[in-house]
Amino acid sequence: MPAPPAALGPCDDAPGYEEAVGFDRADALAPFRDRFVETDGDLVYLDGNSLGRLPVRTPDHVTAAVEGEWGDRLIRSWKEGWWELATDVGDRLAPLIGAGPGEVVVADSTSVNLYKLAGAALAAGAGRARVVTDDLNFPSDAHVVAGLARAAGGRLDIVASDGIHGPVEQIEAALDDDVALVTLSHTTFKSGYTYDLARVTAAAHAAGALVLWDLSHSVGAVPVDLGGAGADLAVGCTYKYLNGGPGSPAFLYVRRELQDRLVNPISAWWGHADPFGFDLAHSPAPDIRRFQTGTAPILSLRAAEPGIDLVVEAGIDAIRAKSRALLAFFEARWRDRLAPLGLTWTSPTDPDRRGSHASLGHDDAWRLTQAMIELGRVIPDYRAPDSVRLGLSPLTTSFVDVHTATERMARILELGLHEPFPAEATVVT
Amino acid sequence: MPAPPAALGPCDDAPGYEEAVGFDRADALAPFRDRFVETDGDLVYLDGNSLGRLPVRTPDHVTAAVEGEWGDRLIRSWKEGWWELATDVGDRLAPLIGAGPGEVVVADSTSVNLYKLAGAALAAGAGRARVVTDDLNFPSDAHVVAGLARAAGGRLDIVASDGIHGPVEQIEAALDDDVALVTLSHTTFKSGYTYDLARVTAAAHAAGALVLWDLSHSVGAVPVDLGGAGADLAVGCTYKYLNGGPGSPAFLYVRRELQDRLVNPISAWWGHADPFGFDLAHSPAPDIRRFQTGTAPILSLRAAEPGIDLVVEAGIDAIRAKSRALLAFFEARWRDRLAPLGLTWTSPTDPDRRGSHASLGHDDAWRLTQAMIELGRVIPDYRAPDSVRLGLSPLTTSFVDVHTATERMARILELGLHEPFPAEATVVT
Repeated sequence: MPAPPAALGPCDDAPGYEEAVGFDRADALAPFRDRFVETDGDLVYLDGNSLGRLPVRTPDHVTAAVEGEWGDRLIRSWKEGWWELATDVGDRLAPLIGAGPGEVVVADSTSVNLYKLAGAALAAGAGRARVVTDDLNFPSDAHVVAGLARAAGGRLDIVASDGIHGPVEQIEAALDDDVALVTLSHTTFKSGYTYDLARVTAAAHAAGALVLWDLSHSVGAVPVDLGGAGADLAVGCTYKYLNGGPGSPAFLYVRRELQDRLVNPISAWWGHADPFGFDLAHSPAPDIRRFQTGTAPILSLRAAEPGIDLVVEAGIDAIRAKSRALLAFFEARWRDRLAPLGLTWTSPTDPDRRGSHASLGHDDAWRLTQAMIELGRVIPDYRAPDSVRLGLSPLTTSFVDVHTATERMARILELGLHEPFPAEATVVT
Repeated sequence: MPAPPAALGPCDDAPGYEEAVGFDRADALAPFRDRFVETDGDLVYLDGNSLGRLPVRTPDHVTAAVEGEWGDRLIRSWKEGWWELATDVGDRLAPLIGAGPGEVVVADSTSVNLYKLAGAALAAGAGRARVVTDDLNFPSDAHVVAGLARAAGGRLDIVASDGIHGPVEQIEAALDDDVALVTLSHTTFKSGYTYDLARVTAAAHAAGALVLWDLSHSVGAVPVDLGGAGADLAVGCTYKYLNGGPGSPAFLYVRRELQDRLVNPISAWWGHADPFGFDLAHSPAPDIRRFQTGTAPILSLRAAEPGIDLVVEAGIDAIRAKSRALLAFFEARWRDRLAPLGLTWTSPTDPDRRGSHASLGHDDAWRLTQAMIELGRVIPDYRAPDSVRLGLSPLTTSFVDVHTATERMARILELGLHEPFPAEATVVT
């Protein structure tokens, strides 16, 4: 691997730098950057949409849970906060997604939550067994619901997009009285296209279907109003913009009016009305708790709290405003520096229809990503087969970060520094 | 609440004390007690079968994961150990249950793992849709498989026991060519009855059924030889005798020969052959990884490692030998001190057919449990409606602990100190 040339060092002599400094100076959220742990040296981390940074408060908070709650109080802690922790954290997260108290619980993984809610929706579908999604959704989500739809004697229809924009009209056209469920990523994982949640929810309801939103790439970055839209179901993860830590537990939302109608297909003890009654017959809890399964993951719930609290404290509207400004600045830098070098903008250009990340297309995306990490000290994400994805997490990304990243990316391409990197490794399974 | 009388203080003047001291002096595992964090003062903790104590090494190990792996390395940690962590920890746990490398993965909760494996077994059942269990199993396990059996057009048969002993012959008699799966707790949660795993496995196989063992109350206390018995499937938790922390992730085992035949009903990305290929078609991994679902819970996996390592280091045979001695001493103390006070022994008396906990029956079990905790500084567990359950976790329970607990329990009953405690609170749901 070649050593990085000096050209990849400071970028404060490049066009656009003073503008970035000015934006940072005017940024009301800039102080939040100090609430997160800095990484080594001058690293620019643009993958907060995959794994958010570590809040400064988290290590002590986790240690207090490990040493105090587990080590000292032992099982007595169940009555001292653990038992309600999953719904408490859900209630705190709820305002970020337009949910009310008692509508959100933090549990399991996003995949398992999706399985539970989509399974419940299909079981309540009164003979409807078709599920509609799009080809921008997480493939994992498609896999989960395809399996469920097949098991219910139906099928999953994957509506084709142009690869960037949600195919809203085609989805609306695909809805008929055989559709039990529409499920989409609110903000899609690659292009960052962000659906008009109210419009699609209304269309699903008009066809008599339920709607299930995956909010993983929205929550903490894009305001979501599930309640205002009358949305039925949602899932999402807490380790992206909510900074909950690697593999932190996911959340699920069920509109209050549906809670006693829908049945969790995984009928285990934490979803029971009386978990310690030890009755051999299952009686689901009458509320959101029925969508829990096994024992709540206490330590990872504790680890997730500080990150969620920081987003709530900053306020989702301020976060969205900064996110829009960051994306606009990134798009301008792309136009000036990266478009001439062959990188295409493969995300929406409409600020209302995108989240807080964007992808750039390049035939050598894999090599370019590796060079950015190894030589450029910039961490983006590669998404097969030809995307470099950059996440601009509003609480931890500065405008100078965006300037540095785009400038270093341009210099790598100009100097051909990505070319010596090996081709993408074949994944051995 | 009355203040505890002096009679509940030291018990070193009571019969049996010198015997307990002698046993502790001869106990080869006694030094392991210092590898766990002590709780406040003279507390006797007999609930390690519900939540194991905190290993001394765990807080630093978790902090290193939080600050070093997450905070500093961020997503680079996926290539520096996180990606394989769930199977690595599974491999380290495997010898405790007679499994080989590549047969165990740590993931999700016990309930979700049970759902995945029982669902896979039913789907592979070639028309067989009946599941057999007993009434000693966790009610949660019965709920999960009953739901699955109904969905498959079959049913769950719950074989009745005498409330203490596994109804082995009745289970064998219930097996016919309509049975897809036999699922039992190897060590049952209340009486501690421990099945002859090889015998029941052979009976299930003779009937053409698969067998799925819940090892939650065995693993780390009772040697289990899944491989020797040719057992098909198993699940279990890591927060009891493995000391993994509250709500730590569970494990699952699938016999190697079955791995490419059984399909995880929750077909999500961590079970995909190529998780980062982002293919809209699902191709399950060819090995144990296909039974994973969502992103591995890294921080709670890290928290679970030290406890698992301690059990492996102590050795399951030494653990079992101490467990048998603890149970025998407890039974002797019960006979001398507690039986005359009306407490019944509601666990097996055969040392080969019990695990490391035992339950005592009493009409006032709830009040007695509360008095033990509040006045006696002894933490047992109450199990509705009339059981006081005492877990003797071999790495952290001393013979003097057993002596102190039984002596204080006797004194509470003799003095009627439990009587002022309120009746069991109604669980509000």
